[in-house]
Amino acid sequence: AIREFLESQELADIAALIDELNDGDDLDVLRLLPLHDQAEMLGYLRPRAQVDLATRIPRRELVALMTAMSHDERADLFKQLDEEAQEAILPALSKAEREDLRRLAAYEEWTVGSVMTSDYAVLKPEMTTSQAIEALRAQAIEAETIYYAYIIDEARALIGVVSLRDLLTARPRQQVAEIMDTEPVWVRADDEQEEAARLVARYDLLALPVLDNSDRLVGIVTADDAMDVTEEEVTEDFYKSSIVQPLEMSVADASIALLYRARIFWLVLLVFGNIFSGAGIAYFEDTIAAHLSLLFFLPLLIASGGNAGTQSATLMVRALATGDVRPADFGRLLSREVLIALALGLTMALAVSLIGVWRGGPEIALVVALAMVTIVLMGALIGMCLPFIFAKIDRDPAAASGPLVTSIADVLGVIIYFTIAARLLEL
Amino acid sequence: AIREFLESQELADIAALIDELNDGDDLDVLRLLPLHDQAEMLGYLRPRAQVDLATRIPRRELVALMTAMSHDERADLFKQLDEEAQEAILPALSKAEREDLRRLAAYEEWTVGSVMTSDYAVLKPEMTTSQAIEALRAQAIEAETIYYAYIIDEARALIGVVSLRDLLTARPRQQVAEIMDTEPVWVRADDEQEEAARLVARYDLLALPVLDNSDRLVGIVTADDAMDVTEEEVTEDFYKSSIVQPLEMSVADASIALLYRARIFWLVLLVFGNIFSGAGIAYFEDTIAAHLSLLFFLPLLIASGGNAGTQSATLMVRALATGDVRPADFGRLLSREVLIALALGLTMALAVSLIGVWRGGPEIALVVALAMVTIVLMGALIGMCLPFIFAKIDRDPAAASGPLVTSIADVLGVIIYFTIAARLLEL
Ligand SMILES: [Mg+2]
Ligand SMILES: [Mg+2]
Ligand SMILES: [Mg+2]
Ligand SMILES: [Mg+2]
Ligand SMILES: [Mg+2]
Ligand SMILES: [Mg+2]
Ligand SMILES: [Mg+2]
Ligand SMILES: [Mg+2]
Ligand SMILES: [Mg+2]
Ligand SMILES: [Mg+2]
Ligand SMILES: [Mg+2]
Ligand SMILES: [Mg+2]
Ligand SMILES: [Mg+2]
Repeated sequence: AIREFLESQELADIAALIDELNDGDDLDVLRLLPLHDQAEMLGYLRPRAQVDLATRIPRRELVALMTAMSHDERADLFKQLDEEAQEAILPALSKAEREDLRRLAAYEEWTVGSVMTSDYAVLKPEMTTSQAIEALRAQAIEAETIYYAYIIDEARALIGVVSLRDLLTARPRQQVAEIMDTEPVWVRADDEQEEAARLVARYDLLALPVLDNSDRLVGIVTADDAMDVTEEEVTEDFYKSSIVQPLEMSVADASIALLYRARIFWLVLLVFGNIFSGAGIAYFEDTIAAHLSLLFFLPLLIASGGNAGTQSATLMVRALATGDVRPADFGRLLSREVLIALALGLTMALAVSLIGVWRGGPEIALVVALAMVTIVLMGALIGMCLPFIFAKIDRDPAAASGPLVTSIADVLGVIIYFTIAARLLEL
Repeated sequence: AIREFLESQELADIAALIDELNDGDDLDVLRLLPLHDQAEMLGYLRPRAQVDLATRIPRRELVALMTAMSHDERADLFKQLDEEAQEAILPALSKAEREDLRRLAAYEEWTVGSVMTSDYAVLKPEMTTSQAIEALRAQAIEAETIYYAYIIDEARALIGVVSLRDLLTARPRQQVAEIMDTEPVWVRADDEQEEAARLVARYDLLALPVLDNSDRLVGIVTADDAMDVTEEEVTEDFYKSSIVQPLEMSVADASIALLYRARIFWLVLLVFGNIFSGAGIAYFEDTIAAHLSLLFFLPLLIASGGNAGTQSATLMVRALATGDVRPADFGRLLSREVLIALALGLTMALAVSLIGVWRGGPEIALVVALAMVTIVLMGALIGMCLPFIFAKIDRDPAAASGPLVTSIADVLGVIIYFTIAARLLEL
């Protein structure tokens, strides 16, 4: 009955179920699945749960399981195991599998190599299309996908890619060499993994071939893994834009200590950064003491600069990330931003001057209106420029975050506001 | 020579090239491509550029082109055309194509229906696997994908899905009914498009079947389009988290007026929201007048509450969006957040009390330290709760943005700081 229930379920859902079960029960359920499903299901488990399960599975069973796993997923699991467990498994694998595992596990986490898989389908250029289809049929159990096949020469250089769709629609006697795409999109193994995800999305690929620095084919990045990379990178960008450092795991699983470390650095740094705002206020203490009613507008004005700046920064960070905007577009966008910021600033100045008249009369209204236009313009320009500056100095534009922009806008906002007030009110 | 150059290029890149060319030249280049490539290339163009081109292509040519396009992409193009152009095209299409176009174009932009395509491959359950492969070969030119095929009954109810891989590895005499997955993952046409993208990513699908409310198969969402949906939704979430309203187009193409409208609403709203901070300050004018040195710490303290809150909000917004955290997890996460916020607040209190001793002596140091712990705790709890509250009242948690959290934290920060100061300093 359980077996029937499991058969009706998707492997991703079975993984979620196994994750919830107690030790022992989870192994019992796992063993109800055919080996190939066990292997695929394991890939859907969280890394931690995979390791937890792997350390309780008898060695021979684990070796069979890892042999059946996708090459990318088993390399990920292998990396997570402690050295003892790694040493126990390696000798039990065939030489080819051992080398494959070592090679894939050696790539650093942020590289294309770390998300590629080496179990791709290969064809020879002189095969006829019907021979090629037969060859793919034979590779279908082992290969991650047979919908794209790769044609390599003796040096493992990639000379073409062909889709199973093209093989099926070609004439049976045509050769693979005649119908293959000889200039496929590809990526380097030590490029950033985002680059692979970007190419898969841009060219609507099911898989992207990966070459090493000697132009040898070493793997493919499949569309499902490209999606995972995108999700990971987007999460990282969200975190950076809110001064949280990357967690390398789900926030639901993260410990208090890990979250504390990911958050404290920028918080304390900005405490010190905000001293400058305080110093600005202290510098204008006389003006403030003479016109205490100015304080009413302080939070509102500096918040507005930060808010407009946060908007500008996000628009640019996201556009740079999706490729909608390139660093070269800076000049053109800057002049547009000035006009937008002026329009925003004038509207907000109108709103704030109404409050100004009500709270302090026409003079105060003029001061806060002028300050608002200047502060919003300043905030928007900082928010707009910071991501480009970060890109220029090879840092992630996403780090041009709202809180950082807001802190800078705070300091300058204080100075702008009280400078205008001091000039206009003490004439 | 141009033709050879074009052959070596990807269609997505040719689209980018055509987008750059002057009117007339773009049509000349387009016509160098075979019809099928023209149709596919058109789908890679920005919506605006598609319309621009379409209105300059002679009607007969446009009809041929739209007949060759993917059904989803031509429906998108059709929607963008003005009524006159729509009326000109419809009569020239076959009845089936006309109805298909009308049906797909009728779905609202946010629905699964708006991103699905109706040119999927179908098989009959009684076919043998070799018959099925032949049938897919015949459908390969028209169908968006032949790697998944759908089995429907006379009422168009979905009774199974089979992959070309499974067809190839099955025995040639086996029937489709024996090897098909009879419980495939599916989605409703009027669900939100994000749901389709989420299912494609979760179950690593190449395509997801879409059913209408009578359980009839009406389309599929392919992986490439799921990726586009994710990119769009992520951009929307980024914008919301920075109080920018969705643009419905690339920020690079957006007009000043459009960007102004997308930004002004929340900016002005928060100007009025921030009046409360000003009112808070005004309320404590006497305390401030007596201890002007307190002002030095004001920006720093209220910024810290906003920063901690922005972090908490982003962590929750993102976790809710990826499904890492569900609304039901709120209680468990809240107690963890309290501990983290206390640890963060205490560290920051230590930092600020050092500055406090230096600027104003031990009494001021105590005030600002106490205020810091309280404000950071308050900010973090607001940032943590707001996304869950938004989810509860069926609003997008992403709208629990940094600027909104910061504004609330500002008001409460002012009150907390000066209340503590008034109590401790005027004893
Ligand atoms: Mg990996
Ligand atoms: Mg294998
Ligand atoms: Mg090519
Ligand atoms: Mg795409
Ligand atoms: Mg994989
Ligand atoms: Mg990044
Ligand atoms: Mg659409
Ligand atoms: Mg068609
Ligand atoms: Mg199923
Ligand atoms: Mg997935
Ligand atoms: Mg499509
Ligand atoms: Mg597409
Ligand atoms: Mg959303």
